[in-house]
Amino acid sequence: MKVDDVAYRTIWCDDDGWSVRVIDQTRLPHHFEVVSLTSLDAVGQAIRAMMVRGAPLIGAAAAYGMALAMREETSDAAIDFAYDTLIATRPTAVNLRWALDDMRERLRNRPHDARVGIAYQRAAEICDEDVAINSAIGDHGLALIREAYEATGKDRPVNILTHCNAGWLATVDWGTALSPIYKAHDLGIPVHVWADETRPRNQGAALTAWELGRHGVSHAVVADNAGGHMMQHGMVDLCITGTDRTTAHGDVANKIGTYLKALAAHDNGVPFYVALPSPTIDWTVTDGVRDIPIEQRDETEVTQIAGRAPGGEVVTVQLTPDGTPAANYAFDVTPARLVSGLITERGICPASAGGLSALFPEHASEAISDQQGVASPAKLPSA
Amino acid sequence: MKVDDVAYRTIWCDDDGWSVRVIDQTRLPHHFEVVSLTSLDAVGQAIRAMMVRGAPLIGAAAAYGMALAMREETSDAAIDFAYDTLIATRPTAVNLRWALDDMRERLRNRPHDARVGIAYQRAAEICDEDVAINSAIGDHGLALIREAYEATGKDRPVNILTHCNAGWLATVDWGTALSPIYKAHDLGIPVHVWADETRPRNQGAALTAWELGRHGVSHAVVADNAGGHMMQHGMVDLCITGTDRTTAHGDVANKIGTYLKALAAHDNGVPFYVALPSPTIDWTVTDGVRDIPIEQRDETEVTQIAGRAPGGEVVTVQLTPDGTPAANYAFDVTPARLVSGLITERGICPASAGGLSALFPEHASEAISDQQGVASPAKLPSA
Repeated sequence: MKVDDVAYRTIWCDDDGWSVRVIDQTRLPHHFEVVSLTSLDAVGQAIRAMMVRGAPLIGAAAAYGMALAMREETSDAAIDFAYDTLIATRPTAVNLRWALDDMRERLRNRPHDARVGIAYQRAAEICDEDVAINSAIGDHGLALIREAYEATGKDRPVNILTHCNAGWLATVDWGTALSPIYKAHDLGIPVHVWADETRPRNQGAALTAWELGRHGVSHAVVADNAGGHMMQHGMVDLCITGTDRTTAHGDVANKIGTYLKALAAHDNGVPFYVALPSPTIDWTVTDGVRDIPIEQRDETEVTQIAGRAPGGEVVTVQLTPDGTPAANYAFDVTPARLVSGLITERGICPASAGGLSALFPEHASEAISDQQGVASPAKLPSA
Repeated sequence: MKVDDVAYRTIWCDDDGWSVRVIDQTRLPHHFEVVSLTSLDAVGQAIRAMMVRGAPLIGAAAAYGMALAMREETSDAAIDFAYDTLIATRPTAVNLRWALDDMRERLRNRPHDARVGIAYQRAAEICDEDVAINSAIGDHGLALIREAYEATGKDRPVNILTHCNAGWLATVDWGTALSPIYKAHDLGIPVHVWADETRPRNQGAALTAWELGRHGVSHAVVADNAGGHMMQHGMVDLCITGTDRTTAHGDVANKIGTYLKALAAHDNGVPFYVALPSPTIDWTVTDGVRDIPIEQRDETEVTQIAGRAPGGEVVTVQLTPDGTPAANYAFDVTPARLVSGLITERGICPASAGGLSALFPEHASEAISDQQGVASPAKLPSA
């Protein structure tokens, strides 16, 4: 999407043909900076430090990490070493694994002198495929916004609440949850986005606000606590979030706090949609609350926060009294019963085993059998 | 309660017999500082700036504000001026109004030369009454913690989640939501408190963490987003929050985000109790979501935050990109259907018209008639 009228992706191969350029997202929103990654280690570090973040972008970065590793050494051991290094960076990101499996598969049993070229070509394809997937998600989700706009009598903007950052910064381009919003905005449908701050890492206040603002989309940041009140008072027409991992039964693991917004949406009859590229579906897991392990991150993400001081420099300040302990769960799982529908690159489906396997029949056999879903597959909406 | 082994209240009359001492809560948690308020204006400013905050403490401060006003001038006009000045400071605080009505009533039609003495004496009584009320709330709420402890088989601490700060800092002493916790702790019942950070003003991370830590109660701060996940996984035995205003039907207006935690508690079968002194009951309002006006505060509370920089000084940093708009709703309303019970100074009652009017029969006639509540008053628990 655009940054001050210039179109960008979040990751691309540099003009030198091998170094990898990314937007350093830890410097946003106060500094817009593009950096070069030139080694496997640098990519691993970039993922770990959340210089690149968001499930699809992590997958793309890992693919380029594998390509950079091949440039250093093309042995089978090097493939395995790169795989192990990268997989360890973010345990919850299911399409990190997907991208690495795909890369390893394509590199093994191929001539050593072809591996660098294959790796770079495939990494570029993974990026292009991500853009195509997200654009399709946007086209399908656009129908929901159009519908909501018609429901307002076309006399006011559609108010959409989102949590965390599932925008173009979290993908290669377009984003997932924000893709329908960009599509609507670019077509002249008036939208207004309520961006949850998303403590503790403030991806909403920092990243969602930044990218919406730079592209020119109307928005306001709200505390994570505010969404329930706003839904009680008709200030939200639609919720759209992303997800890091979707189970075969439609449960969604996403940034901590998503579940609370889904509860509020359900309590107030506000549609709650989750946008996802199909590589983030984990067909081997059904009960997300029970079976998805939730990453715990460092306490200091809760007890401290970084911001721009009056002098312009970014400083980290302590919010709590000295010695205060904190707990920092990074994700939660929203049960499928609270999700109005899943927006995928193939269309919108009910958040259920039936809904998902009807849209992705080639995966139906992978999914653990679900009597209800298999016996009565949910009907797909036309969108 | 105790600050490093010394017992404190949040407000008291100084040894000079007239100036009013308060803990400057805007300086917490990084600095513990007691300041003198010596005029009506100073008290109004202290309430407005949240140097003193929390419904009961605001009431006590307003009473002393009236006393300081009488010291300046004892006319009827001065009473009315002080009333109007103080009532305007926080529109949502119902017992600000209660305290001011009480003071005005006692001062009118009394000899001018008696007014200063009457005002100081009554302000001191309001403080003592608040302490007695909160202590009683603690004794009643203690039964819930005892019960929860027994349910654990007495082999681990009782995990209690709270939102915002309804501790002794929000009252004259003991607190409301935290009073049962202090009572349990002081009796040797092991408790562990999850303190919601409570953005945007971070009263949980700053004040609840500070007062629990200073008194020696086990606790950890969590992001406001975390509670749902923790309740899904059995990490919360009990929720207790305070409230700024309770309707005659048991709806509770409290710090923004309380409603989201109540939804999560309800969805996971976790008891959700609200502790309140009866002066915060507004017998004239029934439907809280519809009829309680919600204060909007300054956008900068969302876009900026104050914390302690590495050098030790407290600085305010900007969290959002330049020019990002924000919305800042200060409270939300939790419908009575999500509240397991109300902990008052007279005991615990169901959050309903019947529950409240059975416990406070003298107010039953004030309350707008509620067919269901009047016809079948809910049974009171023995606690």
